[in-house]
Amino acid sequence: MTEPLAPGATIGILGGGQLGRMIAMAAAKLGLKAHIYSPDAESPAFDVAAAHTIADYEDEEALRTFAASVDVITYEFENVPARTASVLAALKPVRPDAAALAASQDRLVEKEFITSLDIPTAPFIGVDSAGALARAVAQLGRPSILKTRRFGYDGKGQALIREGSDLAVTFRSLGAVPAILEGVVPFTKEISVVAARGLDGSFAAYDVCENHHEHHILDRTIAPAAIAPETAGRAIAIAKSIADALDYAGVLAVELFLTVEQGKEVIRVNEIAPRVHNSGHWTLDGAVTSQFEQHVRAICGWPLGQTARHGTRVEMRNLIGDDILAWRDILAESGVSLTLYGKMEARPGRKMGHTTQVFHDA
Amino acid sequence: MTEPLAPGATIGILGGGQLGRMIAMAAAKLGLKAHIYSPDAESPAFDVAAAHTIADYEDEEALRTFAASVDVITYEFENVPARTASVLAALKPVRPDAAALAASQDRLVEKEFITSLDIPTAPFIGVDSAGALARAVAQLGRPSILKTRRFGYDGKGQALIREGSDLAVTFRSLGAVPAILEGVVPFTKEISVVAARGLDGSFAAYDVCENHHEHHILDRTIAPAAIAPETAGRAIAIAKSIADALDYAGVLAVELFLTVEQGKEVIRVNEIAPRVHNSGHWTLDGAVTSQFEQHVRAICGWPLGQTARHGTRVEMRNLIGDDILAWRDILAESGVSLTLYGKMEARPGRKMGHTTQVFHDA
Repeated sequence: MTEPLAPGATIGILGGGQLGRMIAMAAAKLGLKAHIYSPDAESPAFDVAAAHTIADYEDEEALRTFAASVDVITYEFENVPARTASVLAALKPVRPDAAALAASQDRLVEKEFITSLDIPTAPFIGVDSAGALARAVAQLGRPSILKTRRFGYDGKGQALIREGSDLAVTFRSLGAVPAILEGVVPFTKEISVVAARGLDGSFAAYDVCENHHEHHILDRTIAPAAIAPETAGRAIAIAKSIADALDYAGVLAVELFLTVEQGKEVIRVNEIAPRVHNSGHWTLDGAVTSQFEQHVRAICGWPLGQTARHGTRVEMRNLIGDDILAWRDILAESGVSLTLYGKMEARPGRKMGHTTQVFHDA
Repeated sequence: MTEPLAPGATIGILGGGQLGRMIAMAAAKLGLKAHIYSPDAESPAFDVAAAHTIADYEDEEALRTFAASVDVITYEFENVPARTASVLAALKPVRPDAAALAASQDRLVEKEFITSLDIPTAPFIGVDSAGALARAVAQLGRPSILKTRRFGYDGKGQALIREGSDLAVTFRSLGAVPAILEGVVPFTKEISVVAARGLDGSFAAYDVCENHHEHHILDRTIAPAAIAPETAGRAIAIAKSIADALDYAGVLAVELFLTVEQGKEVIRVNEIAPRVHNSGHWTLDGAVTSQFEQHVRAICGWPLGQTARHGTRVEMRNLIGDDILAWRDILAESGVSLTLYGKMEARPGRKMGHTTQVFHDA
């Protein structure tokens, strides 16, 4: 436990995309300054930050200058190189810390960590060669999913192994890199918990939400998830176990699969993200404290904010690629809040913004 | 009616204080860029804007360069010099326009304009000399209030004329400048309407709110005001008349006095502000669309957003000067949202931030 930051302090953020941008805006709301570090000169987060650095994550001199200008460091993506994190951590607090990065950068380490907490996941086996893949498939069966251990997101770095799939070809198709084979969970819903843990160990979760994907990219989040209250309680308890085990500071997202087995809802962790999360964007318009403000509060050593939801139900929709062309129609929809990320080019699959609507159903 | 702006466009904002800062953040939420123009190198709005210019409002070269870099121009204060506005308006749309500035910069012009719309105000007489003041006091009686016609705010540029006040001394104490004498309205409440008019003439008002002042500075706003529904309807109709008469674009605030005369609520306009307003800060956490976003929508030629309130009641408190020292306690209050303006020095009377709380009373 260290001293809380005071208003006027500067938060350093690695990454200049929409998550960094929304963290920077939340920092500004609380009277803090943001300094964005990104290799991309076109980073949308630069537009809302008091300072920015354009440099590679491996540029140690730039990292040291950056660290000297900020009071705490956080990030918008879990693939921060270990060397980057250690250079920075020697100079300023990095929150969440290296343990959180280690537990989430590598799918095998992540699953082993979660399993060590007696939290269920999909069945999994580490796979380092085509031969090991054949043995793993023999054990977990088909269909199963081969995933690279590192750098996967939005369905990238994954291949489905069906009846008849050529295992050697599949292994090579992902680059013949260290991988993990996961059994397919026949889930009825994908849900997530977005929660925060403070420097003092306090914990606060938002409503468990349910997520609908299209082409492996999040399309829609609904809060609260239509699940049994006991299931929601169990999901939140899982997030708390993970956060406590990591002595975590900041917002954490835990994605889970829900299956119905013998008439009962069963949940298994799919993955964890040591950061604000797309499935928490609904909190920006739909909760008393947004996930971005909550993250800032947590990494500053401040009390966590109230996570209560507005209305009876909140729905968030991502605007992907050309979806953004409908911006005028969306602005005209009564009660719909539009958030755009300031990206100049609408490439296919690119997250351009989102909409949120708070419902007051009977 | 001109073409709406598109996301990616730049909003120029005159003034770098908290209102400019919150307009810039609302612009960013909608995928727009902000360019702040302010003579003050320490402007808190600079921290959340993609660009800023530090120059005097009379620097015509700087104004022209600024205008060339933006798509629409707005302001956070009504005392924009007429010459500044006309230099800018020749180059880019200024919204709200010169008519709105003219109607609000001079208390006498303002009252005459409002009266011309058959909207009641306090009784008033223009006063240009100590002799004219004596004649006006003979007519309106004591107590009455002498106000400078221009540059008054937060009780500055005002003097109460009591029994025994020396009129020549009072006139000189305000600088012997053109002034206006106003009869004292024995109000039971001060209320305000924050509303917006779009480029297409659409109109949307927030709940009428009531305002409590301390030492002439707004201390607390409660929405909705505890007034008769007919009174609220009348107040909103007054704001609409004013906005329509000015062919207004943007957010407008109308402050009114409420008196109870023969058992009936009577309202009189105190003043108008052609901008986002402190009594609308509750909308940031307490309404579907904040007044800042609403202003941006209006000046961009976009549809106005929904003005519905969250909860049954919303309360906003200003943090003035040393009030900000309580920031840690405020952060720990459940359900209280804290907004700080990023000002480095807490001078007495300076607005440093505000808190908002949404109540769900039965």
